[in-house]
Amino acid sequence: MKIAVLGTGMVGQTIGSKLVALGHDVKMGAREAANEKATGWAKKAGARASHGTFSEAAAFGEIAFNCTSGAASLKALEAAGAANLEGKVLVDIANPLDFSHGMPPSLFAGNTDSLGEQIQRAFPGVKVVKALNTINAEVMVNPARVAGGDHTTFVSGNDAGAKRNVTELLNGFGWKHVIDLGDISTARGTESYLPLWLRLWGVLGTADFNIKVVR
Amino acid sequence: MKIAVLGTGMVGQTIGSKLVALGHDVKMGAREAANEKATGWAKKAGARASHGTFSEAAAFGEIAFNCTSGAASLKALEAAGAANLEGKVLVDIANPLDFSHGMPPSLFAGNTDSLGEQIQRAFPGVKVVKALNTINAEVMVNPARVAGGDHTTFVSGNDAGAKRNVTELLNGFGWKHVIDLGDISTARGTESYLPLWLRLWGVLGTADFNIKVVR
Repeated sequence: MKIAVLGTGMVGQTIGSKLVALGHDVKMGAREAANEKATGWAKKAGARASHGTFSEAAAFGEIAFNCTSGAASLKALEAAGAANLEGKVLVDIANPLDFSHGMPPSLFAGNTDSLGEQIQRAFPGVKVVKALNTINAEVMVNPARVAGGDHTTFVSGNDAGAKRNVTELLNGFGWKHVIDLGDISTARGTESYLPLWLRLWGVLGTADFNIKVVR
Repeated sequence: MKIAVLGTGMVGQTIGSKLVALGHDVKMGAREAANEKATGWAKKAGARASHGTFSEAAAFGEIAFNCTSGAASLKALEAAGAANLEGKVLVDIANPLDFSHGMPPSLFAGNTDSLGEQIQRAFPGVKVVKALNTINAEVMVNPARVAGGDHTTFVSGNDAGAKRNVTELLNGFGWKHVIDLGDISTARGTESYLPLWLRLWGVLGTADFNIKVVR
């Protein structure tokens, strides 16, 4: 499949490399086509990897991953262009982290609204699926790093077919337990979880952890 | 031990009954001594159970549990009286739930502040330990209801000795995995988790669940 990865940071590079390893054609999008991180990633990630502007990547992908930082997501998606994303699935991995109150960061959304909903409202023709925002990048693409992969991840979104598509992609990453939380407003649940994740990270001294929902 | 349970709802009754079953003397506190729920609970919970005002309960207990609703907690603790709680451990189970925006509830704290911190600031002479606020009442006192008890709960507080005392009480309830998240500001982590708990409750159709932190 042709896939757009919007964002050039740790999450974008890790997701992009995994998708290439799984045989997909991946174009990494950045604000500027000459972005050094995107150029460097495309060079080392192999023949199926390329890079370009947000707009070029969004036009290229049949599906897109939002791997930009939460505070920059809406601007990055505007640059990607509603027309280029129209009708497509957008996997939103970003978290609404607010670093203005010091460390650990707080949230600028997640309580009576979520970043996932903000994106869905701004791009009504896009099928936004919140996913993977509750774990570290390395665990996102290799859940077996933690407890043999016996733990949980979540999807939230308004389109059932889009959530099935994303769940299949997650299964391809190695995820066995994917809980569909409901419509995009349930992204408030996974975004609000971040403050607990941040404290656990501090206490456990590693980002190689996750939660397993047990009954 | 003599224990105060502040609050007469499901959480207070469940915690109170468990503490009586473990051999403790428990006084349930309410706004008014004649509170029907407290009277009824004390009648059926046995000889070690009694009831009274918030103030009488706080004076009675060597340790106190805040089982009031989050929005009412500060007022209830004022009625309990700083002098009656001075130097004691207060186990804060309340969540800052805000029902004014519809269901599921949102939070009135948890992001750049927490209810646990608000209580600690209002009662600087009290050793506040946030605990048990991430699970349903029945699971709080009987973790084996879920997955044989193989899941996680948390403590947050400024006083290491108080957190050890509370962890011992939790062990007595059957908890095997108790993670000390740090000082009382880490209550932001467990309070912010509630929106995810609420969505999981909706999807799973039962409150008999929890999360296990895995590495």
